[in-house]
Amino acid sequence: MENIELDKLFDFFREIDKEKFIGRQTYLTNAVRKENDAEHAWHAALMAILLSEYANEKIDVLKTVLMILIHDIVEIDAGDTYAYDDEGKKTQQYREQAAAERLFGILPSEKGKYLYDLWQEFELCQTPEAKFAHTMDNIQPLMLNDHTNGLAWKEHGVHLSQVLKRQKKTAEGSSVLCEYAIDNLIMPNVEKGNLINN
Amino acid sequence: MENIELDKLFDFFREIDKEKFIGRQTYLTNAVRKENDAEHAWHAALMAILLSEYANEKIDVLKTVLMILIHDIVEIDAGDTYAYDDEGKKTQQYREQAAAERLFGILPSEKGKYLYDLWQEFELCQTPEAKFAHTMDNIQPLMLNDHTNGLAWKEHGVHLSQVLKRQKKTAEGSSVLCEYAIDNLIMPNVEKGNLINN
Repeated sequence: MENIELDKLFDFFREIDKEKFIGRQTYLTNAVRKENDAEHAWHAALMAILLSEYANEKIDVLKTVLMILIHDIVEIDAGDTYAYDDEGKKTQQYREQAAAERLFGILPSEKGKYLYDLWQEFELCQTPEAKFAHTMDNIQPLMLNDHTNGLAWKEHGVHLSQVLKRQKKTAEGSSVLCEYAIDNLIMPNVEKGNLINN
Repeated sequence: MENIELDKLFDFFREIDKEKFIGRQTYLTNAVRKENDAEHAWHAALMAILLSEYANEKIDVLKTVLMILIHDIVEIDAGDTYAYDDEGKKTQQYREQAAAERLFGILPSEKGKYLYDLWQEFELCQTPEAKFAHTMDNIQPLMLNDHTNGLAWKEHGVHLSQVLKRQKKTAEGSSVLCEYAIDNLIMPNVEKGNLINN
């Protein structure tokens, strides 16, 4: 059976398998190894569905989930840029743009354009879905960092102010979840010395 | 901020992080290491969205995606049972049932019941969503096995008849995708000697 549309889709599915090789800075709950982008996306997508009622604005949950599932695919070419790596962040946008064009370009054109636009929507963070996707993208590693006694934060000497600055976006998607995260996943780590208190 | 509902949800999110430690038999496309349940679920969920139009019957895509994202969570307690492990399969149902009760029981009761029922729906494989979720669950590792020159199949001495028997369920969710998989992901591996031809 020949099917050019399916050939392109499966070429894309094979290519994005590489997302499983892209390491992040966050340790898994066992504190033994760090997670990868695919694991992070699985976790955050599932959280998005179960937490969707906490979004500030009504969201299209399926659209949000797809956005989360694909949001890090560009890192296959562009690599992971750590949240607190200011040098890496300078070239991040250029690197990720080129990656999005190549990777989503593997797909049949209509689906490729849809995913490219969805990735851009995530990056621009203006719509309710993009804002809530960012809330999940931020809260999932906060949860793991808190659970592992701030292991990744301590490795990188992260300051409380850096973490709190990042949570402005978390609040745009869900003020309730942002408040919960600050009180339960961030502030206790200042008392424990896992985050530098300034 | 205290919130018992959110405490239960985050307890569940922390617990299911263990899905990332559950190894499967399938090698990733680099043929270096095998994938884990969370990576598999991410991949299959994304495939489900992009392939949903190929389902035999109209499906609720979000429901299918959630089903895929949670379908292997029971393996946190019950372990992974390889598709061609006939001994393990004898006790699989009992082990997974107990696991589902404990794991989904961590959630607030309404959400816990919803996920438990959804997992059972997947297992029973009677609804359009459950059938299509099984199609993805089968095709994703076929794709990886084919791409890695049948590495996992060769390790386990898997026969063509075993793989084809499993595809009856694949066809129930999507006859088009099943036919595509047989022609493009399975049969070429018989010619290459990656599957035993009987």
